[in-house]
Amino acid sequence: MRETLDFLLHDWLNVQQLNARERFSDHSRETFDAVLDTCERIAREKFAPFNRLVDTEEPRFDGERVHLPQATHDALAAYVGSGMLSAAQDDAHGGMQLPCVVEMAANCFFSKASVAMSGYAMLTNGNANLLMAHGTEAQRRVFAMNEFSGRWFGTMCLSEPQAGSSLSDVATRAEPDGADFEADPLGPRYRLTGHKMWISGGEHEITENIVHLVLAKIPGPDGKPLPGTKGISLFIVPKHLVDIDGQLTGERNDVALAGLNHKLGYRGTTNCLLNFGEGRFTPGGQPGAVGYRVGQPGDGLRCMFHMMNEARIGVGLGAVMLGYAGYEASLDYARQRPQGRPMTAAGKDASQPQRPIIEHADVKRMLLAQKSYVEGGLALALFCARLVDELHTAPPEAADGAKLLLEVLIPIAKSWPSEWGLEANSLAIQVLGGYGYTRDFPVEQYWRDNRLNMIHEGTHGIQALDLLGRKVVMDGGRALMALATRVNDTVQRAAQVPGLSEASNELAAALAAVGSTTKKAWSTGVPEEALANATPYLQAFGHTVLAWIWLDVVLSLEAGAVRTAFSAAPTHDDQRREPSAADRPRREDDFAQGKRAAQRYFFAYELPKIHAWLGVVARRESLTREMQDRWF
Amino acid sequence: MRETLDFLLHDWLNVQQLNARERFSDHSRETFDAVLDTCERIAREKFAPFNRLVDTEEPRFDGERVHLPQATHDALAAYVGSGMLSAAQDDAHGGMQLPCVVEMAANCFFSKASVAMSGYAMLTNGNANLLMAHGTEAQRRVFAMNEFSGRWFGTMCLSEPQAGSSLSDVATRAEPDGADFEADPLGPRYRLTGHKMWISGGEHEITENIVHLVLAKIPGPDGKPLPGTKGISLFIVPKHLVDIDGQLTGERNDVALAGLNHKLGYRGTTNCLLNFGEGRFTPGGQPGAVGYRVGQPGDGLRCMFHMMNEARIGVGLGAVMLGYAGYEASLDYARQRPQGRPMTAAGKDASQPQRPIIEHADVKRMLLAQKSYVEGGLALALFCARLVDELHTAPPEAADGAKLLLEVLIPIAKSWPSEWGLEANSLAIQVLGGYGYTRDFPVEQYWRDNRLNMIHEGTHGIQALDLLGRKVVMDGGRALMALATRVNDTVQRAAQVPGLSEASNELAAALAAVGSTTKKAWSTGVPEEALANATPYLQAFGHTVLAWIWLDVVLSLEAGAVRTAFSAAPTHDDQRREPSAADRPRREDDFAQGKRAAQRYFFAYELPKIHAWLGVVARRESLTREMQDRWF
Repeated sequence: MRETLDFLLHDWLNVQQLNARERFSDHSRETFDAVLDTCERIAREKFAPFNRLVDTEEPRFDGERVHLPQATHDALAAYVGSGMLSAAQDDAHGGMQLPCVVEMAANCFFSKASVAMSGYAMLTNGNANLLMAHGTEAQRRVFAMNEFSGRWFGTMCLSEPQAGSSLSDVATRAEPDGADFEADPLGPRYRLTGHKMWISGGEHEITENIVHLVLAKIPGPDGKPLPGTKGISLFIVPKHLVDIDGQLTGERNDVALAGLNHKLGYRGTTNCLLNFGEGRFTPGGQPGAVGYRVGQPGDGLRCMFHMMNEARIGVGLGAVMLGYAGYEASLDYARQRPQGRPMTAAGKDASQPQRPIIEHADVKRMLLAQKSYVEGGLALALFCARLVDELHTAPPEAADGAKLLLEVLIPIAKSWPSEWGLEANSLAIQVLGGYGYTRDFPVEQYWRDNRLNMIHEGTHGIQALDLLGRKVVMDGGRALMALATRVNDTVQRAAQVPGLSEASNELAAALAAVGSTTKKAWSTGVPEEALANATPYLQAFGHTVLAWIWLDVVLSLEAGAVRTAFSAAPTHDDQRREPSAADRPRREDDFAQGKRAAQRYFFAYELPKIHAWLGVVARRESLTREMQDRWF
Repeated sequence: MRETLDFLLHDWLNVQQLNARERFSDHSRETFDAVLDTCERIAREKFAPFNRLVDTEEPRFDGERVHLPQATHDALAAYVGSGMLSAAQDDAHGGMQLPCVVEMAANCFFSKASVAMSGYAMLTNGNANLLMAHGTEAQRRVFAMNEFSGRWFGTMCLSEPQAGSSLSDVATRAEPDGADFEADPLGPRYRLTGHKMWISGGEHEITENIVHLVLAKIPGPDGKPLPGTKGISLFIVPKHLVDIDGQLTGERNDVALAGLNHKLGYRGTTNCLLNFGEGRFTPGGQPGAVGYRVGQPGDGLRCMFHMMNEARIGVGLGAVMLGYAGYEASLDYARQRPQGRPMTAAGKDASQPQRPIIEHADVKRMLLAQKSYVEGGLALALFCARLVDELHTAPPEAADGAKLLLEVLIPIAKSWPSEWGLEANSLAIQVLGGYGYTRDFPVEQYWRDNRLNMIHEGTHGIQALDLLGRKVVMDGGRALMALATRVNDTVQRAAQVPGLSEASNELAAALAAVGSTTKKAWSTGVPEEALANATPYLQAFGHTVLAWIWLDVVLSLEAGAVRTAFSAAPTHDDQRREPSAADRPRREDDFAQGKRAAQRYFFAYELPKIHAWLGVVARRESLTREMQDRWF
């Protein structure tokens, strides 16, 4: 994977271009490489060897504490020690000022080695980043800083048992805690009561404290919460109360573990039902979970979704890495496992020894499919992370362009790897055959772990509604047009390259099909008609985006003069690649041939699928709306 | 499911037509119903409640014995008590002379309730049936009869650690046991040495003995086994030696459990590595597993594959039933779970209570997909089972026709439900969301259990090679033409029905596409070129077959005069439906509407996928052949 990662970062995404920006000016290829080296080593030594262990030794609750394998404590201590929790933070805050794209690339090693163990760190990072954006100075100092240092870990508490995808039905209440509730130096103080479900990292003893970020509703003057999402506010609810210096006061907050969820996969990450304010503990002598409001009342969702781009890219990247781990495992197996013989016109010669199964066309098909899914998914995720850097550090016009592109790409970056990384894992099992179905090999665990990704952080269906219901129609379709411009740029560059002109035409046709289908879906202006087939639309859109990513990636293997997606980005501070790259000849090595084969696979075997998906969208197929419960 | 089963058996497959044949003349709708009632009840009471238990309490080997939950013993005792093990056997042998199609329909209840527990019975049935076909009178009496009575269970020992899909590489040896080896009343006696892998039911204490059917090679005069499959013979190797009266001699045969496989799913069925002749036991004072040859030397594969039609339909039906179980669980959940509100032009009204998720179009889409996969798969499996009855009891011409159809349908009956039943299970998880990912609900187990089915009893890739490499080209394509004739008959009947003419055209086009693609794949006559894309061909072929099945099924809802696939079967003893059916009006009830919706779903959302699959086959896409190991 490392070679592909380096290639994508440097040859394709021109990451060094970022070093021209002030925030990243202390960085260089060398510092980026050093970060990746460190992460690769820690993941190999502290995470990968224990990935099966954390699956079989599931978190256990003794009524008092949650027990995890020692390996989890050790792995996360090593992660904290690497400084990666605060990698993207300012130097002044102990960070490295690493670009998002490099941070995400480095975190790939951990997700691939053990997605469940690395989950605690990813959540903590997201939590602390959110506080940096929306917290008060005291909240940042007390909570975020202690998370970046790894002293405390964090969670995101959104869902409730009766409200998974429907956040407007959040029923957790937050009442002002006393008349002086606004005078608390840690922020306006409330008492929370309610139940939060699916809370990853919601209980453990890895760190001395856990910082919960909780969505809850503040009742209005009539004592009732506002219906809908408008009444939702955001609160910091620490497991143990702390003072303004970040010291534990010794008082336990009224947050209690109601139960651990026992899952299909991802077992190394605790997943909890938490009761807030049930009176199990009585901080300050009374029941109710003490929480400090972040931002203004009613601003909860806006604050929470501030980090949504990164969170959703992160989920997608986790799905990619599970797929990648399975790809590598099945590739390794296919090279070693003898079985069968080549089919020839004269049949098979049973007197010859069996050949490694990688020589069979169907096994190569399954490996190529995996390669195209996971390397393509990785490229897409890093592309999006690169756009996040644009959003945060590019001049306004370029930042706006990046923002627009992210609007339509984020639903894909989250959903596409969740679906196709899972398919990659299924193919990895298939390559191993019976052995893949046993727990003696890792591929079955990857498949189980990956099944979560279409569910959490916005289900597949929710991503589809977000894409077709909001993103492609917002501002008169500006975001979709921005993407089309980028895709067309790739189409035109590919058209000039011998061997890529056919793919160029195919991508252009796919883009046109997506565009016209979008119009047809909305041609009646009736949301129910357009959105009844949002999921097939998401699938077709995703495959089109991936075809574009693949074509753009292989363009970067051509002679240096051919620009790639990021050198072509209309950014203000766009710098031409260094002359050596511009003079670079077409790459013809094994690595490049592999990339070309994966691109060719994707165009031959995958891209044609979009027409089946788009058909029902374009004609606003009414079957699912007309179907009656009693007919099932 | 019962209503669908009854409908398929009686309204679609005209099963009562079989009662006109001598073998089934004692049967009637009433006797068939009684069998189904009994099986449904036993499955509900003895199997379903313990399906999770046999997953969590995995078989355990204490070095001496394998321990299973008591529930497994009880369930199988109830199964044995039902008489289903010998349901298809002659009255004279204690059987019921049940048609294959009714036997399979009745066994559906067990597979759906617990595919892992029912596995022991299915294997035993297959084993004993094989002995009835190829064993000597003594072998039938001693081994088969004691299996049909449930006193002993049976296994099939084909694979070896180094030879899964490649049976020509079987290395287990069978040497004549003494000069008088041919004089044993139980059959020519050999000593076997070797290792057999993936042996389901290979060890347990459910029954007092286990009858292993083992493929092994008898060395030639030079002491070496013949390369290839020609040298393979078949042997009965009982775990405990028995005498000619079927009594245990008290001597343990030299068959030893080397280890239990710990699997992703299907955990309630033991799966074993067995060592034959390693000297752990010394029957007759010497090492070597005693085995009695079945059939002639070198006839092993022919004998073993005699029951392949039934075995492969059985695997497909198991996959269907796992899909069905998930469909029912997710349908039940979707009707009860409130979440979200209908989207209208005015947006959503958060002040209204949440609605059951079955009201959301995307949830209905996921339920319709499941319905179309599992009910379609069930119809296909029963159709094939009905053909097996034709094969065995119809006059020669009709039997030949059924044989031809089975040639091309068996790879589909096995592979298609394995792939799409699994997809159904994934959709069931998705409908339940986070809850579906927990072990508190059954759907995750169904998904894990079902992942086996693309692997065992001939992998997906093997089925694909069988279909494109042998079945569709054999005898100048006669089998494919026989199928095309049947499909065209359905196409023509559907063309006359208002509301089905479009589907009729779509099916005709799909059939034409499959036909022309078959020709193009083989147009160069080079097997490597044709077969490199055998799996996408299998997928497209499968979807076309299922579209045909669905269209034919819904035709049987039309007025009685419209013939259905089986009334249209060109069988010699074809009897017109009773007048009441012929006069039957078009069904318009909820049941019928549901079937029509599933057919419509399949044609709108699924059938169009075939073009993406066929594209690479038709142009003999060379990518997977050209791909080099070092490029990965």
